[in-house]
Amino acid sequence: MSWLDTSIMARKGVAKGRAGDRHTITIADQGKFHYVYGPYVQPVLEVDPGAVVTVETHDAFEGKITSESDKPSEILNFPFLNPQTGPIHVRGAEKGDALAVRIISITPRGAQPVGTTCLIPEFGGLVGTGNTAMLNAPLPEKVKKIVVDEGGVHWSDTLTLPYEPFIGTIGTSPEIEAISSLQPDYYGGNMDLPDVGPGAIIYLPVNTPGGYLYLGDCHAIQGDGELCGVALEIPATVELQIDLIKGHGNSWPQLETKEMMMFIGSARPLEDASRIAYRELVRWLAAETGQSEADAYMLLTMCGKVRLGNMVDPKYSVGASILKRYVK
Amino acid sequence: MSWLDTSIMARKGVAKGRAGDRHTITIADQGKFHYVYGPYVQPVLEVDPGAVVTVETHDAFEGKITSESDKPSEILNFPFLNPQTGPIHVRGAEKGDALAVRIISITPRGAQPVGTTCLIPEFGGLVGTGNTAMLNAPLPEKVKKIVVDEGGVHWSDTLTLPYEPFIGTIGTSPEIEAISSLQPDYYGGNMDLPDVGPGAIIYLPVNTPGGYLYLGDCHAIQGDGELCGVALEIPATVELQIDLIKGHGNSWPQLETKEMMMFIGSARPLEDASRIAYRELVRWLAAETGQSEADAYMLLTMCGKVRLGNMVDPKYSVGASILKRYVK
Amino acid sequence: MSWLDTSIMARKGVAKGRAGDRHTITIADQGKFHYVYGPYVQPVLEVDPGAVVTVETHDAFEGKITSESDKPSEILNFPFLNPQTGPIHVRGAEKGDALAVRIISITPRGAQPVGTTCLIPEFGGLVGTGNTAMLNAPLPEKVKKIVVDEGGVHWSDTLTLPYEPFIGTIGTSPEIEAISSLQPDYYGGNMDLPDVGPGAIIYLPVNTPGGYLYLGDCHAIQGDGELCGVALEIPATVELQIDLIKGHGNSWPQLETKEMMMFIGSARPLEDASRIAYRELVRWLAAETGQSEADAYMLLTMCGKVRLGNMVDPKYSVGASILKRYVK
Amino acid sequence: MSWLDTSIMARKGVAKGRAGDRHTITIADQGKFHYVYGPYVQPVLEVDPGAVVTVETHDAFEGKITSESDKPSEILNFPFLNPQTGPIHVRGAEKGDALAVRIISITPRGAQPVGTTCLIPEFGGLVGTGNTAMLNAPLPEKVKKIVVDEGGVHWSDTLTLPYEPFIGTIGTSPEIEAISSLQPDYYGGNMDLPDVGPGAIIYLPVNTPGGYLYLGDCHAIQGDGELCGVALEIPATVELQIDLIKGHGNSWPQLETKEMMMFIGSARPLEDASRIAYRELVRWLAAETGQSEADAYMLLTMCGKVRLGNMVDPKYSVGASILKRYVK
Repeated sequence: MSWLDTSIMARKGVAKGRAGDRHTITIADQGKFHYVYGPYVQPVLEVDPGAVVTVETHDAFEGKITSESDKPSEILNFPFLNPQTGPIHVRGAEKGDALAVRIISITPRGAQPVGTTCLIPEFGGLVGTGNTAMLNAPLPEKVKKIVVDEGGVHWSDTLTLPYEPFIGTIGTSPEIEAISSLQPDYYGGNMDLPDVGPGAIIYLPVNTPGGYLYLGDCHAIQGDGELCGVALEIPATVELQIDLIKGHGNSWPQLETKEMMMFIGSARPLEDASRIAYRELVRWLAAETGQSEADAYMLLTMCGKVRLGNMVDPKYSVGASILKRYVK
Repeated sequence: MSWLDTSIMARKGVAKGRAGDRHTITIADQGKFHYVYGPYVQPVLEVDPGAVVTVETHDAFEGKITSESDKPSEILNFPFLNPQTGPIHVRGAEKGDALAVRIISITPRGAQPVGTTCLIPEFGGLVGTGNTAMLNAPLPEKVKKIVVDEGGVHWSDTLTLPYEPFIGTIGTSPEIEAISSLQPDYYGGNMDLPDVGPGAIIYLPVNTPGGYLYLGDCHAIQGDGELCGVALEIPATVELQIDLIKGHGNSWPQLETKEMMMFIGSARPLEDASRIAYRELVRWLAAETGQSEADAYMLLTMCGKVRLGNMVDPKYSVGASILKRYVK
Repeated sequence: MSWLDTSIMARKGVAKGRAGDRHTITIADQGKFHYVYGPYVQPVLEVDPGAVVTVETHDAFEGKITSESDKPSEILNFPFLNPQTGPIHVRGAEKGDALAVRIISITPRGAQPVGTTCLIPEFGGLVGTGNTAMLNAPLPEKVKKIVVDEGGVHWSDTLTLPYEPFIGTIGTSPEIEAISSLQPDYYGGNMDLPDVGPGAIIYLPVNTPGGYLYLGDCHAIQGDGELCGVALEIPATVELQIDLIKGHGNSWPQLETKEMMMFIGSARPLEDASRIAYRELVRWLAAETGQSEADAYMLLTMCGKVRLGNMVDPKYSVGASILKRYVK
Repeated sequence: MSWLDTSIMARKGVAKGRAGDRHTITIADQGKFHYVYGPYVQPVLEVDPGAVVTVETHDAFEGKITSESDKPSEILNFPFLNPQTGPIHVRGAEKGDALAVRIISITPRGAQPVGTTCLIPEFGGLVGTGNTAMLNAPLPEKVKKIVVDEGGVHWSDTLTLPYEPFIGTIGTSPEIEAISSLQPDYYGGNMDLPDVGPGAIIYLPVNTPGGYLYLGDCHAIQGDGELCGVALEIPATVELQIDLIKGHGNSWPQLETKEMMMFIGSARPLEDASRIAYRELVRWLAAETGQSEADAYMLLTMCGKVRLGNMVDPKYSVGASILKRYVK
């Protein structure tokens, strides 16, 4: 028996966590990509709970950075960044529900070198930016193109890093807002949290009929914080299983793996992102175990874990989690 | 000669700061109000630069809080808050331009008591909120209805405050985003800055064809920071003169009065809002006077002024300004 | 009758706000200057409540920057910065009391040009710093020496700014800590708040027997935020009247002028400094008028004022105030 | 061969990482405990580099919370909190050096239940505090006393957590400041970082002759962030090996284990703590490998790890690290 059989998806999903129809969205199927998470577009696909969907995603630069001599500042055209595949309409999804999205696999797509990272002027965690506005001169631009294959991430002649892929940007549509795919928030979006990878199930709040699932921005590997602003960006083929949890009622994204349960908060400053994530976790833990919020707060003081997603996006993202074996 | 003749609006406006056609938008004209700043709706009015427009606005609660025994948490229905009149399409406005909006007058509208303020659970500057997430119990809800007339704001039997009205929320549409009217940002929005009142001209960046001017949320008076989260909210009749500055190129709202020039930044934490506002001002001052950025930075160290708009919205707003007599 | 007769100092001071013995501390009297606010030194002077003390202060650079060709990075020797005169022991002062310090006058001292400002690498509000750690290159260093006389601050051939002096750093000793004079905190210190000038009375919490008043770092003029990190620094002669308020019990500095009552908070991020200042003011207003904290909170939402002291020191300082005429 | 033989301590230490004389500091030896990190006291012990010292520490409450019915607010007497053993003078240590402190073991001390945690009014990560000043009522106080033995941390009848001890507060003296042992900063102090446990070597900047090593505040276990403000506090016996790295020149604490190299930053807001830690790591990595800062920045974007120490102390602490196998 797999841990999946005890997941929230299996226990509470409309499809009971069972795989249903298979669908595919290729780059051609998608046609026009999206740069906002919002309800003002037509879905590219409509599915029933249980659907298994294979999705082709662009990299965060829409494939436009092709050489190490490219200048990101000349190529990238704000706000047309971080192109998203979708939205996928999930039948029956209503405000107050959650989409359960199990990530089955993430495979790099296209000709080598498929990985791109770069330094973009006034963007990143250790430089002045549009918000943390400074008078210092920006760092010089720089592009690295990296081969990513079954052997890993070939960073340099002497260093190969592991292939640890995840989805940088995934979420549902807000109810009436349409928000840049560069931003993470209560509906998911650009969280850049390495836990959102194969083996995990993410539960995304539904705010609008059909939920409207968007995704993109896959990363071959990323450190905590996505320090320079962009990870190792890859075009990818992503396989997902989508279920629907009626009335799940989570206010922020929730993520489950075999070992742990996590909530993800996004805000500035970073302590607010952490507070959001931890408060959600306190409340979930109290409800799940029947202990008081005060007791759950004290227990998480002993064994809560924090994972920094990004400290570079318009909001910063943090996951707070507890090992399932401590949930009792 | 009025100072207006030397304003940016007069010097650079398409209509040269001269009043043009008169228009009116009543509550009935508007019909459906808007809760996001975005391009995904039809304009309620289209005007030429120079237009003088009389606009009826709802209060931030859309008039639904009518008694001191009302419970805001039962009446207010997020995200349908802070209803906005507009958008107004300004002919000829293109990305990179600025709308110049001169505020001529703000008059309370409707039956007394026209002013409303309240304590809303998990909202405000001195309480835990959805972002600054706390486990403390919220403060009790509370509503105050206040008579506002020519004599001032009748706060209590013993205290009358002055009538110092301004527009809490005003701005243009983002290019592809549609953002809650509760939020301030680079296009304006819910800045809650008391300087945005009669006598001032605000220059709002244009991001989308026609600019799409929205406004609402008038305040009869407000202290710095809009501390409890809502000012003295009033339905109002606002008279505006709208001009267009081609290629003005400001990245954030700029505000001019007879005495001073200001830039307005919105971000969290509050120092980032201040940094944005001050960096814009440094750059403007350097360009205007021909001094270096370093010299402008040092001069503003001596005589820059900071006004806190709000410290309660999804982003906080700060105006940084310099007296015109020091601009040389 | 002067407003002083109705001040807290006059109503509650041990000396009832009356001037007592006169004392002087010259540079020579002081001998060794101090770079921390702490209890681990002997007082330079011991006085009774009511004492009027004339104090000579160094500028924040201890007079070492004498020419516009000086390099601050070569001259300044951290942590031996911002030299303080004092401490002054006030007889009878005990933990829980407050020192009342009325600022009578501030006069520039020494040969012209007496004013100094500069750009110091990795210091200031619009540059990366030791805390807001960036990889960007620092701005070039720069020194300006400015003539300050009765005619004002002679900034350039074309611009004279007003002489608006205040004490940048003033406070009492912590109980067991000794904290850099670069930092502001609950005991005062490097607040850099322009309101701390002639005509004001500041009430500083006493934490240690005798209170141990320190001061220094006078400024000829400063904008809100002390943007580049140093104001127009001057050596000065300061005249003070010192009284003692037994059991005053303020947790943070309180400041009174003819027109207003203010509390000063220091913290990072800036919203926390504002929260501290405003919470103190809410509680004071509620106690003073007999209204509930909720009512005081709502009233300050209408008419509270915020003044930014610095956004460059190890903690940022904010004053929140209310006009006395609204205190009823 | 142990990894220790390749550690910085072994390669650069005055004692070359070899164990020297043995010393002991018992509670009785210490006599008077310290509540500040500062130079204004006599050392309790003077040692040569290489010394192995067995130190008895109090818990953070100095053992005063003995029962679950105790009220922390009545027992704890600010600023006399978090009592520290020391200082230990290390012969030859001068400003610009680093103390290398290898943590050999941490053993609980005293009668069961030796572990204490509690909720203290206005203290913690999910409540309003003295800095994040709120008007909400504080949470009720609460004390938990927990048995900690070889079998682990006996949290409840159904839940035993692992014994994962570390030193919550350890550091050197500032040069002229004396700072509360509740605060972490560039010299170490109350970092509450779980990595500071057996098996690790921490390199602490020396600011004053002899370095003046203080420590205390051992924790039996703690989650990331020390969420409620106090971990599972235990009195302990700590065994340390102390070496001296001449001219090491680190500005912030550095920590080494068999697998990784970390730098620790402390600041508010949390992003500044992260920036400090990551900038130190960028610069170390560039120097260690000969790559540019830009390349080191990009590599850490791929594989840097962030550990949250506390988000509750006067400054928040974050460790940024890289696996040694990626340092090439």
